[in-house]
Parts: sequence; C-alpha cells; structure tokens
Amino acid sequence: MQKMNMFMIQRAFSSFSISRVSRLHQPVSHGVSWSFSHINPTEDSISQLLVHEGFIQQCSSGLYAMLPLAQRALDKLCRIVEQEMEAINANKLLLPTLTSLELWQKSGRWRPTNPELMTMSDHHQKQYLLSPTHEEAICELLSHKEDTSLSKLPLLLYQISSKFRDEGRPCHGLLRAREFMMKDLYSFDCDEPSAAKTYDVVTTSYLRVLSRLGVPYIRVEGSCGDIGGSFSHEYHFESDAGQDILLRCSNCGHCASQDFLLETRGGIVGQQEAHIECPKCSSSHMDSIKGIEVGHTFLLGDKYSAPLKATFQYKQGVRRPLIMGCYGLGLSRLVQATVTRCSSQNSIVWPWVLAPYKLCIIGPKRGSKESAASVWVESLAVCLQQQVPALRGDVIIDDRDAFTIGNRVYAAKRAGYPLVVVVGKHALRDMPLFELIDNTAAFRSLQETSKTPLFGEGLSSKSGNLLTQLELLNYLGVLCNELDQIRS
Amino acid sequence: MQKMNMFMIQRAFSSFSISRVSRLHQPVSHGVSWSFSHINPTEDSISQLLVHEGFIQQCSSGLYAMLPLAQRALDKLCRIVEQEMEAINANKLLLPTLTSLELWQKSGRWRPTNPELMTMSDHHQKQYLLSPTHEEAICELLSHKEDTSLSKLPLLLYQISSKFRDEGRPCHGLLRAREFMMKDLYSFDCDEPSAAKTYDVVTTSYLRVLSRLGVPYIRVEGSCGDIGGSFSHEYHFESDAGQDILLRCSNCGHCASQDFLLETRGGIVGQQEAHIECPKCSSSHMDSIKGIEVGHTFLLGDKYSAPLKATFQYKQGVRRPLIMGCYGLGLSRLVQATVTRCSSQNSIVWPWVLAPYKLCIIGPKRGSKESAASVWVESLAVCLQQQVPALRGDVIIDDRDAFTIGNRVYAAKRAGYPLVVVVGKHALRDMPLFELIDNTAAFRSLQETSKTPLFGEGLSSKSGNLLTQLELLNYLGVLCNELDQIRS
Repeated sequence: MQKMNMFMIQRAFSSFSISRVSRLHQPVSHGVSWSFSHINPTEDSISQLLVHEGFIQQCSSGLYAMLPLAQRALDKLCRIVEQEMEAINANKLLLPTLTSLELWQKSGRWRPTNPELMTMSDHHQKQYLLSPTHEEAICELLSHKEDTSLSKLPLLLYQISSKFRDEGRPCHGLLRAREFMMKDLYSFDCDEPSAAKTYDVVTTSYLRVLSRLGVPYIRVEGSCGDIGGSFSHEYHFESDAGQDILLRCSNCGHCASQDFLLETRGGIVGQQEAHIECPKCSSSHMDSIKGIEVGHTFLLGDKYSAPLKATFQYKQGVRRPLIMGCYGLGLSRLVQATVTRCSSQNSIVWPWVLAPYKLCIIGPKRGSKESAASVWVESLAVCLQQQVPALRGDVIIDDRDAFTIGNRVYAAKRAGYPLVVVVGKHALRDMPLFELIDNTAAFRSLQETSKTPLFGEGLSSKSGNLLTQLELLNYLGVLCNELDQIRS
Repeated sequence: MQKMNMFMIQRAFSSFSISRVSRLHQPVSHGVSWSFSHINPTEDSISQLLVHEGFIQQCSSGLYAMLPLAQRALDKLCRIVEQEMEAINANKLLLPTLTSLELWQKSGRWRPTNPELMTMSDHHQKQYLLSPTHEEAICELLSHKEDTSLSKLPLLLYQISSKFRDEGRPCHGLLRAREFMMKDLYSFDCDEPSAAKTYDVVTTSYLRVLSRLGVPYIRVEGSCGDIGGSFSHEYHFESDAGQDILLRCSNCGHCASQDFLLETRGGIVGQQEAHIECPKCSSSHMDSIKGIEVGHTFLLGDKYSAPLKATFQYKQGVRRPLIMGCYGLGLSRLVQATVTRCSSQNSIVWPWVLAPYKLCIIGPKRGSKESAASVWVESLAVCLQQQVPALRGDVIIDDRDAFTIGNRVYAAKRAGYPLVVVVGKHALRDMPLFELIDNTAAFRSLQETSKTPLFGEGLSSKSGNLLTQLELLNYLGVLCNELDQIRS
C-alpha cells in the first residue's frame, strides 16, 4: 500500500508539475551581442538566431542537435501529425535507418556517383544506405508476406524518423541539414484511379496539418525529378528567406514551381520565368516569389512496387504490383520554417500551436522591494494550468530571480514566449494585479486574409495592462481559445 | 467559417475515431501453422511469435521494422518514460545519429578493431560513427557554450532515438538487434557526492518506469565494462529465456550479476558461480538465475567530460570538468522483453499499460443468423471509449466479418488483446447481452507477491459471462481501474 501511495502522490504532483527556466537547458550565447534590428529575416539569420538563443546547436557540418525547447516544438508537431494520420486510418510504423543497398539496385535508383547518398558497410562487407527515403524498404516489407489482399486497400503506412542526405553545401540550420526528421507516408492501391483518390485523401490531410499551424502555405504542382511517378505537389511557405522559386499568375492566381513549369514547357532553362505563360489562363504575367519547401507528395505508380515485388492478390493465382504514392513532410525543417515565416518582426515568433511553452511567468528579483510578491508566482502557475485548458503543461516560470524583471522580460521576448505574465510590485496591493504581455500580434497578423476578425466577440487586447487574477484567467481563457482557432 | 466548421467536424470525429482490424497492417503469416503448445517461451520463440503474428518484421540481419501494433506499444512506453522524466525535471533533446569519430578518439574509446562500431565516411572523407551511445557527443555539446554554471546543476538531458551496434551474431529479434530504440540520459553535477545523489534520483525514476509496466524486475550491481566509471547497476527481468546470468543469495536474497561478482572477486572466470560468496552476508549459497537486461546505469565521473572539456564555472576564472552519469533503457528491447516475461502461457500476453489496444470488439459474421446484431458493434465501441477513461483510444473493432466469430476470437487471443467483447446472437434479445473474454489472468498472475488482492472490493471475474451493456460498462470501469493500479 505504501508503494501505491508513493505512486499516487507522485502522479498527482506530476499532473501539476511546473517547468522552470533554471532547470532548462537553453544555452544562450552570452558575450556575443545580437542586434535584432540587423535582421531582415533570411534563412540564415533565423538559423543563427535559433542557435544564438539556444534552440538548436551545430554538432558537425549539417548535423544539428535539437535542444529542449526546439524538441518540445518538434514533439508538438509530431502530435498534430499523428492525430491527422489517425483520422485517415494511416498506420504508424518504424523502418530501420539502414536500407540494404541491394534494394536500391533492384529499383534502379542506386548510382554510385550520387554524392548525396550516405553508405556504410557492416563487418561482413554488406552495404547499406543511411536512408534518405524508404520507397524501396517499404516495398520490400510488403513483398515478404502474402497478406496484402484487395480488402486491405488502400493501405497507408507512415513513420517519423531521421533521414540522411549528404548535402554538398549544408547550410541554414535545420533547412538544409544532412540529418533531419522526416514524416514519410506510403500509400498502396489496386489501380491508378483508386491511387489518385487516396492521393487526394492524404494530401488533404497534409493541408490540414499545415493549416493547423496557422502559417499561410502554398501548394503547387511540382516536378517529379529523381523519385519519378506521374505527378507531384510541393508545399511551400512564401518567404523572402526561401530558396525555391515559385511563379504566381497575376491574372488568375495560379501558382507553380519554376522547375515544374520549365520542365513541362520543354525544358527551357535559365532565368526566363518572365516568358512563361500561366498554364491555367495563358496570361503571360507570372510573378516570381520565393518559397521554403516543407513537403512534397508524389503519385508513383508501380515504379518501385513492380521491381521489388510489392503485389496484391488481384484474383486467385494472379498478383499485380501495388500502385503507390509517397508523401514527405519535413518535420525538423518545418520547425525552423514556421519560425522563419512568423518572425517578420525583430525577434523569434513561434506559431501558437508549436510554441515550446505558451506562457512564461516572471516573478520579482530576489532581495528587491517587491520580493514578497514572489509567493504569487507558483500559485498563479498552478491556477493558470488548471483553469485554462490550452495552457496545461505549457506554463514555465522564469525563476532566475538573481536577474531583474526587465532582464527576464527581454529574455522572454527573445525566446519567443507568446504570453508573459509579470508578478511585480502591483501584486502586493490589497487586490493584487499582474501584468500581461501579449507577444502574439506578429503571429496573429499572418492571417491578414482571414475573414473572421480576431477578438471578434468584444475582446480587446489587454497586453501591457494590469489585471486581477480573475481578469487574467477570464482574458487568457478567451484569448487562448481564439488563438487555438487560428488556421491558415 | 466553412473552413472552421470542417475542422470542428473533423476534430469531433477524430476524438471518437475507432480503429478497425481491416485497416490495420498486421501481416500474420498464413499457411504456416504455429502451434502455441510447442512454445516453452525462449527469447527466440517469442521473437518468432512476434514476427509470425505481424508485430515486427525482419528487414535485414538484425534490422527489424516495428509494425503498427508493436509501434503503438513502443509509443506508449515512450509516453511513460517522458512523464517520469518530466517529474524529475529532465530535459528532452535529440542529438544527431552521426557522431564525429574525432570525439571518440579524444575520449580514448575509439578502437579500429572493435567490430561492433559502425562507421561511415561523408563525401569529404570525414569519418562518423553511427552512435551506439552519446557520452562523447553530449560532452561536446556542453563544451561549446559557456552557459553551464553551478546554478544550472544538476543538469539532466535525455533523448529517445535509434542506436547502432554491429552485433557479431544478431538474434532474438528486438533483443539483440543491430539498430534499436534507446532512451539514454546523461546527468551532470559539480562533484561526486552530488552526482551520487542525482544518480539515486534518476535510477529511482527508472525503477518507477519499470514498476509502472507491472512486470517484476530485478536491479543488481553491474560491471562497468568498456564504458567505465565508478559503479553501475543493471535492470533485469527474470526469465528462463534470458541470456544474462544473475546470482541470488538463498540466505539474504541479495542479487548481483555474475560478471560483476567475478570481476570484483579477482577476475575468476568460468562456471564457478557455486563457489562465490554472497558479498552481503557471506553465505556460500548463490543460486544462478537467468535475466534479460533492459537497462544499465553508470556513474561515470569525469572520464568523458575531462577530455572533451565539458566543464562548469567552479569560481571566477576556474573551470572544472562536470561529473557525469549515464543511464540507458532499451525501449525496443523492453517491448519484446515484457512480452517474453508475461507470456508464460501459450500465447502473446502484453502488459496492460503497453497493450497496443486494450479491448477488441468482435461482431457477427456477415450473412449469419445473428448478423442483425452488428448494429451494436459501433455504438458499443463509442460508448466504451466515452465511459471508461482507460479505454479511450484503445478500442479496436475486428470488422473482418467475412470470418466467423470463432476465428476472430482465436485471432484476438493470438494477438494478445487483453479484453475481448463478442457481439453475437445474445445481442438480439430484448435485453441485449454481450460476452466478455478477459485474457488478463496471465498478466495479473505476475504479481504473485502482491499483498493487495486483485478484485479486492468484491469484484469477481466475469470472463466468459454474458453481460448487459450497463453491467459491461460498470464491470470494465472497475476492472480497468484495478489493472491500471498494478505495479511490480
């Protein structure tokens, strides 16, 4: 029984456990002055900022550690992906990182001259790839057992795992890394029309994932390139910091990747985008915009399933290759890309649903006149987590009370906490007041085109205001609710 | 607004989304007869059974895919680990799989003759290890910025990621694989006494993780071996299927690994355990038992932090190496080891908290006399998930209604679903009745030593009984609650 009690206490404690900045590994670069005003966000400046503020850290060229705050954002993104995958009955699994080179020889994709493929040999001299993608491996998996019957189709299999690509010039932090976190899904159908239907279901689900981030995205027709297949789509964030070029028709708004247009219009190369006609309305005004690619989906047909014998039982004794789609979403890349897209101002801005913590509470400095107010900090943290569902598990206390409030408010802004509550001298009044700092304006302003006005129901911004505990709770309840509703 | 509605509908749907066996990728080997009665569980027979029943699949020697059901068990295990880590303020992060070989040269651990290390070269001929563990990498991470101050200590950093070891003879499925999922934690302190205290906190937390699985475990003093340090502990499941030998004193019950005893008693080798004295009570009766190792923790001191310059600011201008501990928990190994430990009977038994799904509902065969009863299946699934918190997200319907009920009950038993509800002809009565099959006996019987009787409060087993919907709900509510409380 004593054992049981220990567990119950521990559990009760853990459901209200509160994070503290003093216990957080966030190695901010001291002694290096970083002027936000110099940043006209580029991919590179944002990756430097993420390094500088202790979110990620380079371990080797193109190899980054996700430090605890970025890891929390990545974990939140994974949950969103998992929820949307469950809604379309996709099965999560995990394939080995190492794929036998043989399989890539069978599919015809192995070229020893491809410098981007990373290989290794085991002690029996058998060769493996550090997989950049798993089309071959998943086909091999399905070829082994005779279970894939018509009734099981469409079959959707996905995984979240590290992928490898030996980039010639790794740069821009998580955007062009040599090891990165990918979500890859593979769909299997009995024929092209069903496969095209499945492709719609899966890509609609991908749009929902992107939409839930609240960061405006663009979906364009893409080039199939090396991977092959009959058609593909790319998913981009429009950003001056991007390295992909998209063309948008100024007449009908149709958007396509420059590569795709050049490819489908006869392989014209060079800087000729001004002369490309819109494939939809034939207008000759295509504007060039920049994008960060965060996803790419392909209808592959039987390019991999046929050579690797991933078949289904068409009728008694007759097996046919499965018709396949593949769907990639760059998860670690998305973490940085969302920050890049949101941080149009002069500090890190996280999309609300990915913010590592949503609210930071800052108490008085130790030994200061208002230090007695610090009794409020802990109870406020518990109360906010209990009363505002969106904040549960997402409140952190900046308990580094050797620093002034001002110092910590500045640090909180740099770290990009969407909401900050300051417990200062006004908390010592008969009716204690707390200051709310609302940093969500930049994120909210991304939804310029949204028809629904934010704060629609008479809620006006109280950022910078002093609020009683009850006012704070009510206001945050409504605000978090509205922020949770934001979709791009 | 329309967009918003779509989301709300989708969300409402997803919160009651029900899994279906027809949509599940579980490639059971047909055409191969597998006789449970032949199984006197060994490591190997259980791994074969997991392959046979479609939980895992071999991709290459020692490289396994976690198929969807095993992946669900692994994900559940990860959540438990994350909760316990949060309770001790450990920070989750993610280091690259690739560790620069240089770092292992600096620590002195690199031996080109070690056949277990997997290496690769990038296109600049720089060499990397596919990390089997990350002591060097994490020290290098901490050496880069000058942030580690006394006030940040103890610092606990952990990750959950794939690790690599080129086993000479990979075997027993996930138990001795070449790529496996590990949870590794690294602790950093200012001196040995603090490090020892932190070691206690972390290892107590590891015991809580193991305890929550409800599978009896043994913690023993271990040998430090290659990794080094001042002391270590191993965590084992006692199992005839195990390959590690532990010695237990028949007088005082003290338990230690044979390797450790041989090492500390002067390096006596061979089968001499009968002659080893108990280090605690000096009794000469040490019984040899077999164990499956699922974790190993070490107090390392400065073996890695000193050469790799992971230091903290001791006082102005003076930096000292951090005192380090490392703590490994084999997660994919645990998935198989728990099944091996629980499956003492003649089929797969999952520990309750890791069971991929906790309850399976089986409806009538299509076209049969009782087929009208199938209207109950869906509503029962929704109702169980709504009313019994432990079942939320954990109910699956075996909707393969081309098969008889008997066939599917047999399949459910083989897959190890702890609870099965059959909707058959009795569901057509005026007062519909459902059959409950309770497969949790083998798991419950693991707790032989438990002082608290199960079903203590007057609940007697209703397995095989016909219950009304209300009786079913009430009974499952109490049963799941009791199962949730089981600790080893």
